[in-house]
Amino acid sequence: MNFASDNAGGVHPRIMAALAAANEGHVPSYGQDSVTLAAQDRLRELFDAPDAAVHFVTTGTAANALALSMLSPGWGKIFCHPDAHVQTSETGAPEFFTAGAKLVPVPGTGGKMTPESLSETLHVHGRDAVHAGENAALTLTNATEWGTVYSPAEVEALTAVAHAKGLGVHMDGARFANALAALDVSPADLTWRAGVDILSLGGTKNGCIAVEAVLIFDPARSEEFEFRRKRAGALISKHRYLGAQMLAWLEGDLWLDLARHANAMASELALGLARLPGVSIDQRVESNAVFATIPAELHDRARASGIAYHLWPHTQSALADEPVSIRLVCGWDTRPEDVSAALQVLA
Amino acid sequence: MNFASDNAGGVHPRIMAALAAANEGHVPSYGQDSVTLAAQDRLRELFDAPDAAVHFVTTGTAANALALSMLSPGWGKIFCHPDAHVQTSETGAPEFFTAGAKLVPVPGTGGKMTPESLSETLHVHGRDAVHAGENAALTLTNATEWGTVYSPAEVEALTAVAHAKGLGVHMDGARFANALAALDVSPADLTWRAGVDILSLGGTKNGCIAVEAVLIFDPARSEEFEFRRKRAGALISKHRYLGAQMLAWLEGDLWLDLARHANAMASELALGLARLPGVSIDQRVESNAVFATIPAELHDRARASGIAYHLWPHTQSALADEPVSIRLVCGWDTRPEDVSAALQVLA
Amino acid sequence: MNFASDNAGGVHPRIMAALAAANEGHVPSYGQDSVTLAAQDRLRELFDAPDAAVHFVTTGTAANALALSMLSPGWGKIFCHPDAHVQTSETGAPEFFTAGAKLVPVPGTGGKMTPESLSETLHVHGRDAVHAGENAALTLTNATEWGTVYSPAEVEALTAVAHAKGLGVHMDGARFANALAALDVSPADLTWRAGVDILSLGGTKNGCIAVEAVLIFDPARSEEFEFRRKRAGALISKHRYLGAQMLAWLEGDLWLDLARHANAMASELALGLARLPGVSIDQRVESNAVFATIPAELHDRARASGIAYHLWPHTQSALADEPVSIRLVCGWDTRPEDVSAALQVLA
Amino acid sequence: MNFASDNAGGVHPRIMAALAAANEGHVPSYGQDSVTLAAQDRLRELFDAPDAAVHFVTTGTAANALALSMLSPGWGKIFCHPDAHVQTSETGAPEFFTAGAKLVPVPGTGGKMTPESLSETLHVHGRDAVHAGENAALTLTNATEWGTVYSPAEVEALTAVAHAKGLGVHMDGARFANALAALDVSPADLTWRAGVDILSLGGTKNGCIAVEAVLIFDPARSEEFEFRRKRAGALISKHRYLGAQMLAWLEGDLWLDLARHANAMASELALGLARLPGVSIDQRVESNAVFATIPAELHDRARASGIAYHLWPHTQSALADEPVSIRLVCGWDTRPEDVSAALQVLA
Repeated sequence: MNFASDNAGGVHPRIMAALAAANEGHVPSYGQDSVTLAAQDRLRELFDAPDAAVHFVTTGTAANALALSMLSPGWGKIFCHPDAHVQTSETGAPEFFTAGAKLVPVPGTGGKMTPESLSETLHVHGRDAVHAGENAALTLTNATEWGTVYSPAEVEALTAVAHAKGLGVHMDGARFANALAALDVSPADLTWRAGVDILSLGGTKNGCIAVEAVLIFDPARSEEFEFRRKRAGALISKHRYLGAQMLAWLEGDLWLDLARHANAMASELALGLARLPGVSIDQRVESNAVFATIPAELHDRARASGIAYHLWPHTQSALADEPVSIRLVCGWDTRPEDVSAALQVLA
Repeated sequence: MNFASDNAGGVHPRIMAALAAANEGHVPSYGQDSVTLAAQDRLRELFDAPDAAVHFVTTGTAANALALSMLSPGWGKIFCHPDAHVQTSETGAPEFFTAGAKLVPVPGTGGKMTPESLSETLHVHGRDAVHAGENAALTLTNATEWGTVYSPAEVEALTAVAHAKGLGVHMDGARFANALAALDVSPADLTWRAGVDILSLGGTKNGCIAVEAVLIFDPARSEEFEFRRKRAGALISKHRYLGAQMLAWLEGDLWLDLARHANAMASELALGLARLPGVSIDQRVESNAVFATIPAELHDRARASGIAYHLWPHTQSALADEPVSIRLVCGWDTRPEDVSAALQVLA
Repeated sequence: MNFASDNAGGVHPRIMAALAAANEGHVPSYGQDSVTLAAQDRLRELFDAPDAAVHFVTTGTAANALALSMLSPGWGKIFCHPDAHVQTSETGAPEFFTAGAKLVPVPGTGGKMTPESLSETLHVHGRDAVHAGENAALTLTNATEWGTVYSPAEVEALTAVAHAKGLGVHMDGARFANALAALDVSPADLTWRAGVDILSLGGTKNGCIAVEAVLIFDPARSEEFEFRRKRAGALISKHRYLGAQMLAWLEGDLWLDLARHANAMASELALGLARLPGVSIDQRVESNAVFATIPAELHDRARASGIAYHLWPHTQSALADEPVSIRLVCGWDTRPEDVSAALQVLA
Repeated sequence: MNFASDNAGGVHPRIMAALAAANEGHVPSYGQDSVTLAAQDRLRELFDAPDAAVHFVTTGTAANALALSMLSPGWGKIFCHPDAHVQTSETGAPEFFTAGAKLVPVPGTGGKMTPESLSETLHVHGRDAVHAGENAALTLTNATEWGTVYSPAEVEALTAVAHAKGLGVHMDGARFANALAALDVSPADLTWRAGVDILSLGGTKNGCIAVEAVLIFDPARSEEFEFRRKRAGALISKHRYLGAQMLAWLEGDLWLDLARHANAMASELALGLARLPGVSIDQRVESNAVFATIPAELHDRARASGIAYHLWPHTQSALADEPVSIRLVCGWDTRPEDVSAALQVLA
């Protein structure tokens, strides 16, 4: 009954098996092996982007920070939601990789900014450039940190505002598969066709060991990315093991199946929680996370029964006998019986 | 009738004369000349800080960014007012000099944060350190960007909160002399005795050509500053001309006299404006700037008569026939007749 | 017959099995799982360093650059051999992670500097500090890029020179196991007892997928490292899979057995090559690499038979009919029959 | 009798007078004043470069580091002479401003590299780019750190090699006026017509207080420079005092007259020294510095008589009774009687 995070989960057996299968003989290192090349091709195909540059790294923070450093100079401003992972949970990695860019919060409920809030924020930051810095990039998280998703139309509306002001657009897709599964749209529709320039596509939280792809839809920027990745210490030498994870994850739509399952578990969990007296569901459940406020008594019982989840936001002070707000994340490996067991404890 | 900025003004004749007086023969460069040494000693004396390290640079941005880079690592958070110059007007210099620190806004009216708003912000940023970064520094501007001042007691209340959480404290004193003149307290009482670790002390806006002092009250940090200043390209070779400006500026309390005069001019200007129909004074006038909202008709007349000032905030869109918010700054060289002439135009 | 690099090789079956074994249920992420904790403890035990901080990353470049950023400020100088991997093959990662440090070459034959060459270089860089930067760190590679090894006494002689000048000492141990196996000394004797402050210990080239440990012998620096690792995008979320690799690699001295084998293969290869007419062995073969100059005719035959190796240095221009200098690397998975087959082709 | 450095000298009276003349009323800050605009225009005219971007800063280190950061990314290599000021005397400023570029020494006697030494160095650094970094820029100092000068033809031969490899070219002209005066060629011939992309033009060492111009011959890069300058804390607010210095310095060819005088003094000093028994002149005297080796007895006598100069290189250890190598620099304010007095002491 562990709902702490999708990175507390394990690795899907087909991915583990692919690692073992890739473990044969000597192959070129640094991404020149056939498995890596096949994984790159497969992503280009799935995204209907035959020219896109595709590169692999082992963390979402590296993927995001490298991507943002492609879009913003050191004197740039990067517009993001105040709760964006790049703002709250990456310890200044975007600032470090860009050599000093400033993250500017664009407000919005449910983890989502709106074209209006983006326009307004850009307006406030729109003048006096040499003293204030250059408006450089927009970054969207999809699925968001609050479990909601941006539809292709919503993405397009935001990127239109951004592009009109000369900003490049990044999408943090640590849970991109969950968004895709929720929306049932094509990868291309949710990214480059909607105006996304660079995508961080996360495999780790959804069944892999550690692999994130960066898709750069303008291939002319590929070489720059390779320099940046190497000097960030993020170029894996035995690259075949990244390629193997990614290929197995994509194979037969495994990535979407796993995401769909995680989403379904969250949906079921939310439905069950909503029925409990005193519980409120605080966000629309659109992907694999549930945000709820529960009575103190339920919280105590959950803790006592070993149900793992996080208080959310982290900085919340749990006061005795007061309701607490919590986040419960389901993963590819959350079983229906985990959900029902948890609900039974709390009922 | 120029109220655009105190950096649009000129240089006080005694300071210009001091430059000429220093222009004799060959002297050691890079700060080892006797004039520079005397200026440093004089500051130590005035601040009752016999051991303080004192260094000179030519811009406030360099002074601030170097000071902050002494207090925050690249993964640090620097807490500042949302309207702080370091946040709005230094193009990412603090981020650049620290190699990536994040500026975190601490709200408050009139350009001032409060111990409560600081505590609350620190609380929100108080957990999950490895993912969120280290809470590293507090920076206060005095006089503030809105012309208000922090008293010694107010500074002390804020630094107490900061020090209790392990933060170092910087004061941006681009207009420190104006604050001192307004409060009629000693330099020591407004800085190190109130818990300030490093002060940027601005001479440029108050009658000098280009000189800012950085006072580091813990002298053990002096050498680090010297390395940082040199590699920032901020070490002036013919240093005597910085020392000469500073020494003349301090001589006979010229700095305080000039600041007192600028403050008095702002006070008079505000009084006059307040009497005009439809004008509101938007901030307490405590130093040398006046923030007012004036009818469109007055704005048009002022523009037509060549009265210079800025819309404030910059991002304001002046709409036809709507009142506008403006900032008027008085300097050491604002004459009473400039003020009365401006008021006459608007009356 | 692939002698191109030890990172072209695969993963030892016991390590692959350990990954599968670790793939059970939900565990804490970011290094708090029991497998990671056990791997850290095991390293402390093996290095007789019960208080050392031990952290894991996935590349040698990240390990090295993070380690050096602990030892040198942005205005520092890092002394290294001209052929050091950090200087030739990490695309400015040390400069990036330190925010600007300068790598200063210390000459020496066979990839090794001497106390004399180090002293002399430090002397030349010993003055005019504010203009020239701070002498901050020494980094040694062991085994070196030329396959030679520093003995504990040699390390100690170099670190003594460094420490006398206030420098911190890093050891790049991408092939540390090969050095240990060659010298048959204890890990402690080759590191902290000989004056090394931080060690990058490489598992990747010697049978793992991607895991490098950083051992910081002064544990007070541990938290700083954690901040640096996270903001470098180098903190792996599903950390158990790093711990599992490392634990299996150390288990039953597997790391040393694999290194000993690779060294033995290189020795056999060198012996065989040395017997061939026109071939010279250019470096003492002390670990798992052989540097040789071979006649053009042999080079052509090797290429034709699919024997893989690199020209060394890379920048060498192979001229028709001229001898070429080459590097052949043996790994944990080089088989005796690979060596004899290669020698047979060339005989 | 001070030959320590041209930055130990004072400011030319016409430049001091220009400061006072500029000290009238309120003018726009940050470079929008008419004096600054006139100085920029005058430089464009003198360099026959009507479209060049011209910007002012207060130190040579800022000028150089900003210029190099325009030409090299953080993973770039900047090729320079081993004795270049950017390499030996700027405390990592180029590395800091570029966020990590590596300076690569290109050898050559007399402070000058040759097309051959440059080609060879580029060849060695010419491969394996992702691991080794990008070959990005060439920087030449003219006049050099050893008082020699590159002719237009020599500059062109070097920039041709650089451009053929895709490198941008910077010239450090801290003593550019001395080179011009020595060669009697046009500013354009020694810079953009010979392939220089960005020039740092130094006024400080040659009679100004603190002003260096950066000429960017491709004006499309101008805005980027402005962002970089501001975030480096190098944008002077009361800019008119930079413009005034520069304008007076150029007026009536004052800059060239001052440089010609300094060169002539050095020439005379060298002639006199060469006649003394046991003295050797170690470099061709082509600008305003003399490098000589003198007997210990002369060194002692010079010191006793208060003749100021530096041992060169700094790291030289003066041994009792051994000849010492020294640098003597003449400035715009070195008087013939200073030279003859010094020679008389030593005769």
